[in-house]
Amino acid sequence: MKREAWRAFERGKWCSDIDVRDFIQRNYTPYEGDDGFLAPATEATKTLWAQVMALTKEEHARGGVYDADTEIVSQVASHKAGYFNKELEKIVGLQTDKPFKRALQPFGGIRMAEEALAMYGYTISPRVKEIFTKYRKTHNDGVFDAYTPEMRLARHAHILTGLPDTYGRGRIVGDYRRVALYGVDFLIRKKEEDKARLSGDMLPDKIRDREELSEQIKALKALKAMAAEYGFDISRPAETAQEAIQWLYFGYLAAIKDQNGAAMSIGRNSTFLDIYIERDLKEGTLTEEGAQELIDHFVMKLRVVKFMRIREYNELFSGDPTWVTESIGGMGTDGRTLVTKNSFRILHTLVNLGPAPEPNLTVLWSKRLPKAFKRFCAEVSIRTSAIQYESDELMRPEMGDDYCIACCVSSMRVGKDMQFFGARANLAKCLLYAINGGKDELERDKAGKPLQVSPCYAPILGDGALDFEEVKAKYVEMMRWLAGLYVNTLNVIHYMHDKYSYEALEMALHDSEVRRFFATGIAGLSCAADSLSAIKYAKVYPIRNEDGIVTDFKIEGDYPKYGNNDDRADELAVWLVKTFMDMIRSHTTYRGSVPTMSILTITSNVVYGKKTGNTPDGRRAGQPLAPGANPMHGRDSHGALASLESVAKLPYDYARDGISNTFSVTPGSLGKEE
Amino acid sequence: MKREAWRAFERGKWCSDIDVRDFIQRNYTPYEGDDGFLAPATEATKTLWAQVMALTKEEHARGGVYDADTEIVSQVASHKAGYFNKELEKIVGLQTDKPFKRALQPFGGIRMAEEALAMYGYTISPRVKEIFTKYRKTHNDGVFDAYTPEMRLARHAHILTGLPDTYGRGRIVGDYRRVALYGVDFLIRKKEEDKARLSGDMLPDKIRDREELSEQIKALKALKAMAAEYGFDISRPAETAQEAIQWLYFGYLAAIKDQNGAAMSIGRNSTFLDIYIERDLKEGTLTEEGAQELIDHFVMKLRVVKFMRIREYNELFSGDPTWVTESIGGMGTDGRTLVTKNSFRILHTLVNLGPAPEPNLTVLWSKRLPKAFKRFCAEVSIRTSAIQYESDELMRPEMGDDYCIACCVSSMRVGKDMQFFGARANLAKCLLYAINGGKDELERDKAGKPLQVSPCYAPILGDGALDFEEVKAKYVEMMRWLAGLYVNTLNVIHYMHDKYSYEALEMALHDSEVRRFFATGIAGLSCAADSLSAIKYAKVYPIRNEDGIVTDFKIEGDYPKYGNNDDRADELAVWLVKTFMDMIRSHTTYRGSVPTMSILTITSNVVYGKKTGNTPDGRRAGQPLAPGANPMHGRDSHGALASLESVAKLPYDYARDGISNTFSVTPGSLGKEE
Repeated sequence: MKREAWRAFERGKWCSDIDVRDFIQRNYTPYEGDDGFLAPATEATKTLWAQVMALTKEEHARGGVYDADTEIVSQVASHKAGYFNKELEKIVGLQTDKPFKRALQPFGGIRMAEEALAMYGYTISPRVKEIFTKYRKTHNDGVFDAYTPEMRLARHAHILTGLPDTYGRGRIVGDYRRVALYGVDFLIRKKEEDKARLSGDMLPDKIRDREELSEQIKALKALKAMAAEYGFDISRPAETAQEAIQWLYFGYLAAIKDQNGAAMSIGRNSTFLDIYIERDLKEGTLTEEGAQELIDHFVMKLRVVKFMRIREYNELFSGDPTWVTESIGGMGTDGRTLVTKNSFRILHTLVNLGPAPEPNLTVLWSKRLPKAFKRFCAEVSIRTSAIQYESDELMRPEMGDDYCIACCVSSMRVGKDMQFFGARANLAKCLLYAINGGKDELERDKAGKPLQVSPCYAPILGDGALDFEEVKAKYVEMMRWLAGLYVNTLNVIHYMHDKYSYEALEMALHDSEVRRFFATGIAGLSCAADSLSAIKYAKVYPIRNEDGIVTDFKIEGDYPKYGNNDDRADELAVWLVKTFMDMIRSHTTYRGSVPTMSILTITSNVVYGKKTGNTPDGRRAGQPLAPGANPMHGRDSHGALASLESVAKLPYDYARDGISNTFSVTPGSLGKEE
Repeated sequence: MKREAWRAFERGKWCSDIDVRDFIQRNYTPYEGDDGFLAPATEATKTLWAQVMALTKEEHARGGVYDADTEIVSQVASHKAGYFNKELEKIVGLQTDKPFKRALQPFGGIRMAEEALAMYGYTISPRVKEIFTKYRKTHNDGVFDAYTPEMRLARHAHILTGLPDTYGRGRIVGDYRRVALYGVDFLIRKKEEDKARLSGDMLPDKIRDREELSEQIKALKALKAMAAEYGFDISRPAETAQEAIQWLYFGYLAAIKDQNGAAMSIGRNSTFLDIYIERDLKEGTLTEEGAQELIDHFVMKLRVVKFMRIREYNELFSGDPTWVTESIGGMGTDGRTLVTKNSFRILHTLVNLGPAPEPNLTVLWSKRLPKAFKRFCAEVSIRTSAIQYESDELMRPEMGDDYCIACCVSSMRVGKDMQFFGARANLAKCLLYAINGGKDELERDKAGKPLQVSPCYAPILGDGALDFEEVKAKYVEMMRWLAGLYVNTLNVIHYMHDKYSYEALEMALHDSEVRRFFATGIAGLSCAADSLSAIKYAKVYPIRNEDGIVTDFKIEGDYPKYGNNDDRADELAVWLVKTFMDMIRSHTTYRGSVPTMSILTITSNVVYGKKTGNTPDGRRAGQPLAPGANPMHGRDSHGALASLESVAKLPYDYARDGISNTFSVTPGSLGKEE
C-alpha cells in the first residue's frame, strides 16, 4: 500500500514516525512565479456553487436555518452519506445526510441544543432529550455542578465573559494531513504504541491518558467507518491528489461532526496538498483545471460548515462564525518560502467562487515572501477583502514553520499543540470594581442593593479627585482576585470539557504528548489604560449614586491617550498586560498547561461594553470597548503610524495567544494603481 | 418539624451536626433482660410472608428469575410505587414496580446487563442498549479502555481473581439512619455547606469533589421524589417508629435501586431504631406486637432484595448473595452494652419468618454482652443456623462503637468509612509463578506455548529437590510484581467506578470527608504456607512437562502443616501475610485510600482452586484452596483448639479487612442441653 501511495516521494524520518513537517520539507516545491498558471472555475464547480448559493438564499428566507436534525445525535459515523450532486462533486462529505441540514450536537449541553433548535422552530426529539438528561451528563451540566457561587456571580456580572461553558471550546486543530499521508490504520497503530508506553504506576493522570488514547483509537475507527459510508477505504494512505484532499477533508469532517467548537480551524494544508498535486501533474493524471477544481470543491465544503447555535452565542460573536481558518504561505526555518502553487490556488477560490468569510484564509506574512505572491495577495485582497494576514516573523521563532492559526490569531504547531480556550476578563470593569470594592456598578442583588461580586474589599471613599496611587494599589488587589478566579473557573471548564465532551477525533490527529496552552484573554485594555491615565494626568472626580457606588466621573483637564505613541499612556497599557499576565502565571493551570494571554476581542467588545458602566476615561456606560488592543474609538489623534506604534509596544511574550488591532484603510490611501 | 420529631430525645451535638452515634449514646436503652417480651408474627405478617414464599416458589419454577425489567433503567426515582399488599404492608417500597421483578442496572456494564437478562430468557430493550453503547459509557467499558495487556493477562490467568470490573464494587454502606433522624432536607443543607467549604484553588481533585457533592445533592432530591411516589414526605425527620423504619428503608432502597453492588450491606440499625420504638411504647402509640410487626416487615423487605447477575458472578460467589448485612449488639466504648430490645426483635425475625441467609444478621460478639442476650443468640443459632458472629473486642479498639460490617467481615465506621473493594490475589498460584518464572502452569498462549504472565523472571532450573532459600527469594520477587500489578489494577477499577458508576446516593449518606479503605485480599494462604513448609522441611522434587514447566511435585518425607499450632508452619503463613501486605503498602493507592487486606475467600476458594495447578504441598490441580485463613482441608490433625490457635497467630494489623475461618461444629460437641 505505502509503496504505491508514497511513490516518487523522498523518504525520511516521516516514513517510520508521524512527522508531516519532515514530509513537507523533503518534498514540497517552493513557487516564486506569478498567478499566470491559474485556471478558472469548471462547469461542474459553477453548477455546484450555484446550488450552494440557491440553498443559502433559501436558508436566509427560512430565517437563518435551512433544515435541522432533531433526532440523530451527531457522532463521527452517525449519518448516512450526503451529497450536493454526487455526479459532480470531486470532494464529498456532509455534516449530516443532507446539504445545509444542521447537526444535533448535545454533548456540550442539552439545553443549548434544545434552545438552538427552538429558536428556529424545531423541536428536539424527546428521546434525545431524555438520554442527555437522565443518562448522559453534558459538559454544561458538569461545569455548573462544580462552579462556585463566586464564579456564577462573576459570570453573571460579565467581569468574566464568553466563557466556553455553554458552547464547545474549539480552537483544537487536528493534523488532518496525517489521514492523507499515512492512512488511518497507521495512525491507529501509532496510538496503540503510545498507549503501550503509558505503563508503570497507575495514578489518575495515567489512567486518564490511557482511557483517552482508547477513545482516540475508537474515533479513528469511526473515521474509517464514516469514509466507508461514502465508499472510500481510508485505512490506507492517499494515492492521488484527489484522494489526499478527500482523506484530509474526511478527517476534518469527522472533527466537526464530533464537536461544535467555537472555532473549528483546519490547519495548514495547501502546501502539503501541493506535493500530491505536483506529483499527479508530473504523472500526467491531473491538469491545472482539474487541480483547481479539486481545491474549489474542497473550499466549497469548508464554506458550508454550519452549526446550530443559540442566540447568545451569535450575539457574542456578532454572527455565526465557524473560523475554518486555513493558514497559507509563510517562510521555512531553512529560508525557503513555504509558498507553493497551491497557495495561489486556494486564494484563487475567492475569485472562482467569489469572496466569502469562510474558510478564513490567513496568509502568514513575511517581507521575505516571494514578490509575485505578495502582489497576488494584494490583488485578491483588493478585489475581495477576504484575506487575513498574520505576522509569520513574529510567530515562527517560537512556533517553527509548521504552525497554524486556530480561530483568528492563536498560533499552534499543527498536531503538537492544543489550546484550552478561555475567553476574556474585562479589565475595564475590573478597574470599576477596584474603585467600588467589588460592588458591580450596574447589577443589583435580590434585595435591590448593588451586587457584591468580589470579596468585600475597601472601596475608594470620599468625593475628592481620585488618587492615582490609591486607585492603582486597589486595582492590583482586584486584578489579583480576578486572575485567581479566572484561572480557577477555566480549570473547572476544561476539566469538565475533557470529562464530558472530549475531542477524541481531533486529539487522535495530534501527537499523544501534546503541549497545552491555557489561553486567557483580556478585554477593555485601552479603556482601562486611558482611565488610569486620566486619573494620573487629569483630575477625575467620582460621582456616586444613592447607594454610594461610583457610577460616573467628572474629568477636569486633558490626559494622554493610548494610541498616540505617547509613552505616558502606552506604558500604562504595557503595565496592565504584564501585571495581569504575571498574576495568571502565579496559579496552577489544568493539566500542566502553559498560560498564555490574548488581546483580541474583535467583535465581542461590543457586548462587553454593554455590561460596563461609565469609566474614568469619559467613556459612557454601555458604549463599546475598543476591539482587541485598539485605541479607544477616535482617540488616536496622531495618525496611523503613532497608533500602530502604541500597539506595537505591547509585549508579545506576555500575550502569546495573540494581539489584534482592527485597522481600516481606505483603498485610496494605499496608492492610486490597482 | 424537628420539635415534634425529636420530642423526648435528649439533645446534644447531634442536633446541630450530623452525629448519629451521639444521638444513640444519649438516647438508647441498654437491655439486659431476656427474650420473654418478644411477640409472635401477626396475621398480616403471616399473610405477607406466605405471599413471599409463594413468589419464591414460582421464581424457582421459572428458573431463578420471576420477572425482569428490560426497559426502565433503574435509578433512585425511576419506578412507580410497587407493593406486595398495600393494605397489609407496614413498611413499603420495592426495587421496581412489581414484587420480585428484577431491575435493569446497566451503569456497571451494558454487556453484563444484557447477558444476565439473556440467561433467563429476557431481551434487553434495544433503546437501552443503544443508549449505553453510543452515548453513555459504563464502568466496565472504562476499565477495559485503561487496562494494560499485563492486567488482562493476570486476570485471564486468574492470578488476580474476582475483580469488580464486571460488577459493582459494593461494600459501601450508607448511614441510612440519617434519613430517619434528620429528614432529607437537613442532609441536603449539610451537603451544601460542605460543598461551600471546598473553595480555593480549583485543582482536579477539588473539582471532582465539588461535582460529587452536586451529584449527592441530586441523589438526595431523587430520594425525596422516590418516597413521595409512595406518599411519604421524607424531607422532614421521622416522627414515629414506623416512620423511622420507613425512612431508613427508603434510604436503603434508593441505594439498591442506584447500585448493583457485590455487597449491599445496611449497617447497624437495630439499636438506633429501638430508641424510636421505646418512645412510641412509652407514649402508648405502639404495642410490642406492633413493634415486632414493623421489624418483621422491614426484614421481609431486606429478604427480597434481588439483582440481575451473570452466571460467572453466581459461580464466583457460589450463589447470588446480596450481603444485606445488619450488625447487631456489641459493646459501647463507655462500657455499656449496645444490646437493646430491638437486638432481640431483629434476631426474632428468624423465628417469626423462619431462617434465611439474608439479611446477614451479624452479632458483634463480646464476652461482656449481657448473658441473656448471649443465651438468646445461642438458642436462635441452634434453631436456625442463621446468625453470623464477629469479634467486637477485636474491631472496637480501631473502629469505635458505631462501626458495622460490610459484606461478611469488612468493618467500617457507619457513614465515615467506605471501601474500594479489591477481590483477591492468589498467593498459591504466585508461588508456582515464582518456580516457573511467571509462566502459567495451566494456560497457554495462542502459539500453544505456556502463557508468560509476569515479566520473564528466571525460573528454578534442574530436577533436584527445591531449595527453600532459592524458592523464597524468587517468591519474594514474584509477590513484589504481583502486589504492584494488583494495586495498579485496582486503581484503574476504582477510578473508573467513580467516573462511570459513582454511588451518589450512598455517599450522600456519608460524611463528605470519608476515610477510604483500599481493600486487597489474598487467596490460597494455607496452601502457600504448606507448600513452603514442604519445600523447607521435606524434600520436594519438581516434575516438568514437555515444555519444561514444573506442573507437578514429588514429595519425600513429611512436613509441618499450618493449622496445628506448629510454629514452623504457622510462621510461614504469618510471613506471607506480612510480606505481601508490606508490598501492597509500598504503592500509591487511588484517592489516598488506606491499604487493607483480607483473608476471607468463603466460597470463591473453590473457583480459585480450579485455576491453580498442582502445588508443592501435595494438593492436586483443580482442588479447592482452603477458604479464608483456614488450614487445608483435613490437615489440621491436632484438634480444633490447635487449628484455631494457628489462625489466631495471623496479625490483624496486616489484615484489617478481616480474617475468616470457616469452622463447622457438630451441635453435640458443644453440650447436651439445648
